Amino acid sequence: MSKVTRIAVDAMGGDNSPIKVIKGINHHYQSNKNVFYKIFGDKNLIDQIIPETLSKKSFEVINTIEKVEGTDTPLTAAKRGKNTSMWLAIDSVKKKDTDIIVSAGNTGALFVIAKLNLPMIDKIDKPALSGLWPNKIGTNVVLDLGANIDCNDKNLIDFSLMGSALFKALFPNENPKVALLNIGSEELKGNEMIKSAYKKLNISKNQLYEFVGYIEGNEIMNGDVNVIVTDGFTGNVALKTAEGTANFITSELKKALSGSILGKISSLINIKNINNFKNRLDPRLYNGAILLGLDSPVVKSHGSTDFIGFSNSLKMCESIVKGNLIDKIKQSIY
Amino acid sequence: MSKVTRIAVDAMGGDNSPIKVIKGINHHYQSNKNVFYKIFGDKNLIDQIIPETLSKKSFEVINTIEKVEGTDTPLTAAKRGKNTSMWLAIDSVKKKDTDIIVSAGNTGALFVIAKLNLPMIDKIDKPALSGLWPNKIGTNVVLDLGANIDCNDKNLIDFSLMGSALFKALFPNENPKVALLNIGSEELKGNEMIKSAYKKLNISKNQLYEFVGYIEGNEIMNGDVNVIVTDGFTGNVALKTAEGTANFITSELKKALSGSILGKISSLINIKNINNFKNRLDPRLYNGAILLGLDSPVVKSHGSTDFIGFSNSLKMCESIVKGNLIDKIKQSIY
Repeated sequence: MSKVTRIAVDAMGGDNSPIKVIKGINHHYQSNKNVFYKIFGDKNLIDQIIPETLSKKSFEVINTIEKVEGTDTPLTAAKRGKNTSMWLAIDSVKKKDTDIIVSAGNTGALFVIAKLNLPMIDKIDKPALSGLWPNKIGTNVVLDLGANIDCNDKNLIDFSLMGSALFKALFPNENPKVALLNIGSEELKGNEMIKSAYKKLNISKNQLYEFVGYIEGNEIMNGDVNVIVTDGFTGNVALKTAEGTANFITSELKKALSGSILGKISSLINIKNINNFKNRLDPRLYNGAILLGLDSPVVKSHGSTDFIGFSNSLKMCESIVKGNLIDKIKQSIY
Repeated sequence: MSKVTRIAVDAMGGDNSPIKVIKGINHHYQSNKNVFYKIFGDKNLIDQIIPETLSKKSFEVINTIEKVEGTDTPLTAAKRGKNTSMWLAIDSVKKKDTDIIVSAGNTGALFVIAKLNLPMIDKIDKPALSGLWPNKIGTNVVLDLGANIDCNDKNLIDFSLMGSALFKALFPNENPKVALLNIGSEELKGNEMIKSAYKKLNISKNQLYEFVGYIEGNEIMNGDVNVIVTDGFTGNVALKTAEGTANFITSELKKALSGSILGKISSLINIKNINNFKNRLDPRLYNGAILLGLDSPVVKSHGSTDFIGFSNSLKMCESIVKGNLIDKIKQSIY
């Protein structure tokens, strides 16, 4: 039997926690028995909702009294100190009691507390927030999604490496192709920072990935490249704009499909196809943003996801640990 | 009868020109008789395709020998000189022979030749490219979509004013609400340039618009604000990402709806609703990007649109002229 993956779980963050977290753990456990969950949260609450289907050998609950609130600023959250479920979960991965930490709590707080506690990987200057996007063929990695508003060319090169390591950890059979997000595919376009990163990426060779040049926003979801690199401001705007566009289109579609009796009947006939469509775009499938650059992997589940989404972020944790993400980054950095 | 709107039309730009341009003119003319089209292009070609339904009093063809190619760099296009259909169309608006110019040709070339020929509006530092986006309620204006990679706070304030003037020209009964595109709605977020623009917009009062603060990418299509202001790099990435997301979703939807016999049958039953959905999102409805900041309005039709899309850009030209766009900008600038 391969090594057990030990996941530190902050049970107190996000909507409807700890219920969705515990249900998520149980859901994940049913198909992945080789995991140990170190759960940080209110033991009284959690003990009441642990289902019988979750083996007692598969988890441990560490009672925590304090918790980070969704409305906390990162500073307020950090000031709450070392007794919050979030801090203690991060501390356990710092002490190597666990292999990875996941939280559905306050994003800013998670990053600040992680950065306070976990050392950076040597030669990486800034951590980046990366996410998975669906594309016409499968899934790609996009980073930075908002950790760094201002970036320099070295940061973008680091992001290329870290994003590729993540992609390779998640999809071991593929060789990542990296592109820089720009506003034109010609070499002349873009700001000086991007052009400089392009030049350096173009002449350097890295065993982990192949640099393929620039892509534009409309090509992110084509599936031609696997890792899309940008600064945190642009990446966050792109991510949110894609979300907004998807919401807009599906709400217009819903109106169209249910606007008349005929529409309703035909939607019923077609329900299986419509469900396939919904499933393909289900954001819970892509739940889990990864903070890359620290010496341990830190996964942020969406705060508003349900137990299925949380279970998917646990699945991502397992793939990241089994794929040796941090080692992959360290080995490729020279 | 109100004043005739005189539109300078570059007939030689974009796919399938001049055919789509002439068909677009005819289509537009059928519902808008109070327009005069000054058409710049190959007279031999154009004379053969002018339809009988287009009154001879409504247009004039100015024969041009040269044309800007889609593959020209802006510099190459400018070097082709003053005999291209694009240059001469811009020259006619410069000489006030016409009120506005529209081209479906090379975007970079159009902007460079327009900037070479047309003076900037006094006190505006940089021209901006603005476009119309559908939202849940109607339509909003987004700028800059790519004319300026680097912007300062003063540029964003200029864009707020110009975008509002455009919105007001197109929708005279509404009072524009302006927001800055950022990566968080809190005042603390964003880069220094955006924060500075925010502060200045927040204390200054402008008769033309109301400044409502920051919005994020996922809110662009909510319909809560009318004018969304950003730098040209971010705006272009947002626009392209929205396009890519829309393409991705509609292609997944198409797969879902036509993947099985049942799907095909139910789509047939539902065809009217599906068509309503398609029509609502038809990019031809929003065809026409406007270069704002020059002393005359310059409209860029999408190169790949068809005659319906081109006709819509002519409709936009008419609204802009009737709405006194340039006067609105000048009057509100102090």
